[in-house]
Amino acid sequence: MPQINHQFRLAQRPVGLPKRSDWNYMEEPVRPLAEGEILVKVLYISLDPAMRGWMNDGRSYVPPVGIGEVMRAGAAGRVMESKNPGFAVGDTVTGLFGIQEYAIADGKAVTKVDTKFAPLPVYLSTLGMPGMTAYFGLLETGELKTGETVVISGAAGAVGAVAGQIAKIKGCTVVGIAGGAEKCRYIVKELGFDAAIDYKSEDVRKALHQHCPNGVDVYFDNVGGDILDTVLAQIRRGARIVICGAISQYNNTTPVQGPSNYLSLLVNRASMKGMIVFDHAARYGQAAREMAGWMAEGKLKSREDIVAGLETFPDTLLKLFRGENFGKLVLKVAES
Amino acid sequence: MPQINHQFRLAQRPVGLPKRSDWNYMEEPVRPLAEGEILVKVLYISLDPAMRGWMNDGRSYVPPVGIGEVMRAGAAGRVMESKNPGFAVGDTVTGLFGIQEYAIADGKAVTKVDTKFAPLPVYLSTLGMPGMTAYFGLLETGELKTGETVVISGAAGAVGAVAGQIAKIKGCTVVGIAGGAEKCRYIVKELGFDAAIDYKSEDVRKALHQHCPNGVDVYFDNVGGDILDTVLAQIRRGARIVICGAISQYNNTTPVQGPSNYLSLLVNRASMKGMIVFDHAARYGQAAREMAGWMAEGKLKSREDIVAGLETFPDTLLKLFRGENFGKLVLKVAES
Repeated sequence: MPQINHQFRLAQRPVGLPKRSDWNYMEEPVRPLAEGEILVKVLYISLDPAMRGWMNDGRSYVPPVGIGEVMRAGAAGRVMESKNPGFAVGDTVTGLFGIQEYAIADGKAVTKVDTKFAPLPVYLSTLGMPGMTAYFGLLETGELKTGETVVISGAAGAVGAVAGQIAKIKGCTVVGIAGGAEKCRYIVKELGFDAAIDYKSEDVRKALHQHCPNGVDVYFDNVGGDILDTVLAQIRRGARIVICGAISQYNNTTPVQGPSNYLSLLVNRASMKGMIVFDHAARYGQAAREMAGWMAEGKLKSREDIVAGLETFPDTLLKLFRGENFGKLVLKVAES
Repeated sequence: MPQINHQFRLAQRPVGLPKRSDWNYMEEPVRPLAEGEILVKVLYISLDPAMRGWMNDGRSYVPPVGIGEVMRAGAAGRVMESKNPGFAVGDTVTGLFGIQEYAIADGKAVTKVDTKFAPLPVYLSTLGMPGMTAYFGLLETGELKTGETVVISGAAGAVGAVAGQIAKIKGCTVVGIAGGAEKCRYIVKELGFDAAIDYKSEDVRKALHQHCPNGVDVYFDNVGGDILDTVLAQIRRGARIVICGAISQYNNTTPVQGPSNYLSLLVNRASMKGMIVFDHAARYGQAAREMAGWMAEGKLKSREDIVAGLETFPDTLLKLFRGENFGKLVLKVAES
């Protein structure tokens, strides 16, 4: 008696914010496993800004999700059935399982995780892609050095919060930009950032000048738009800008806003560099061990914003683009 | 009997293209030298796009030229009188002598040059700042590697022409973007570029796709604006964009056009990096020797566009911004 699998498949390419009608909610029976495959019951799904890019047509760092395909997403779950000697029934695993209740995988891009060390959602958060993105983006792409002044946008988000804490661990002065008093309070009081700027209520230019009187050495950008331009105007000589994302621009129906202050790169001999976390896959394990150590010491805190119900996906996803999530946005699909 | 010195001094900060009324043409007697000083008769003055930036108020990599000050410019001349043991009457020298007939300098930032190896204007061109900019911008900032595909804008200009020839010497495929059939013919037939794109008559996007079917590894940008955006859309993974200048934007009365395709940096793990030639001053001599060697072997050609008459300065400068100069723009002040 096969299980019934509920799924969200891409119905059409969104224009602007994804609408409910851009998705088809479908059900189909789970097919029998072939040799080498595993069946995963999806428990938690990671909802990430990058997913918006995957819905667009055109050349990018990964192929777009095809029309009619299950929406791509990182997720965590439990192995229900295994025809792969590398996995046993009951193993907890993460992988690109998609927006669905059950996934069949060949095991190649599936990682076993141990819930003795951290709850499963943390493996989609600080010990998952967002954490890896923060770690490699800041330390490798950003070439962070002790004592530098670091600014992070989307600072209460999944990547930003980890990036800021790592910068503190590395002995930097860290200023976070976030939306709303509660998020700003959180990153300073709970996460130990030196200062927060509420872009919804403050003049970012003035606040940045106040908190970084000598300018910015590293800017970790998750948002693009006006904030990128504002920081560009206040970088120091030799500054590095890490282009991790541009959530302010992903749902544009007009052209992306290019940074009109980019010539500050010239004047300041500074660089702006893009990064894709997948390039660092060979070293995820090493980074995760170091980050788990920091978590155990209480130096690195992880916060997840968990919303229950696969069927809420189309609306829950929009929390990201409305800035409503507080911590890593995770969709809970099942209890166990 | 003191010489009379004619000078152009900045009368007011230009809005858009510098007008005649932004300058004061003045004369004053040359004052007696103090101990340690030299008097230089200016023979050739370098006219460069960067000068437009020096006229603006505000923080930059050098202080702005003050209102009432002699306009800053690189120049070459002959020592007429010396109270500095490092210089003898008759020495040919280069330095920031300004837009004037006579300059007094303390010798610290003055370089002796030998006209046995190259005519004096070449020391303002391929063996001067533009050549150094091309050399360090391409090899250091651009981290050029043999066999890569290199695109250069402003390719028939002072910096671009040298950059393209160095890239050829280093075994790269080189595509130049320039304005007009004559410049395009020149960079291919005379300088050995693999291809040229005439941005005035061709669809740059299509032509770039044709000449760089596998994408662009290094883009040496002198122009900014639409061309920067077009190249950004066709970079390869790991590409480096050298921000050397943005002549299309220097006289804007509207905000600078930011590169709306900058997220191509993210997708392609690419970088955009600014450079200022002055940072490499300690190695100018070494670079100039290598470049002089290439010139002697016929691998590196230098072309100057020489306009006679100090009094023509306000109008001659505009040739740069109209794309009318063909080779390094030099103002000839005196014969000897």
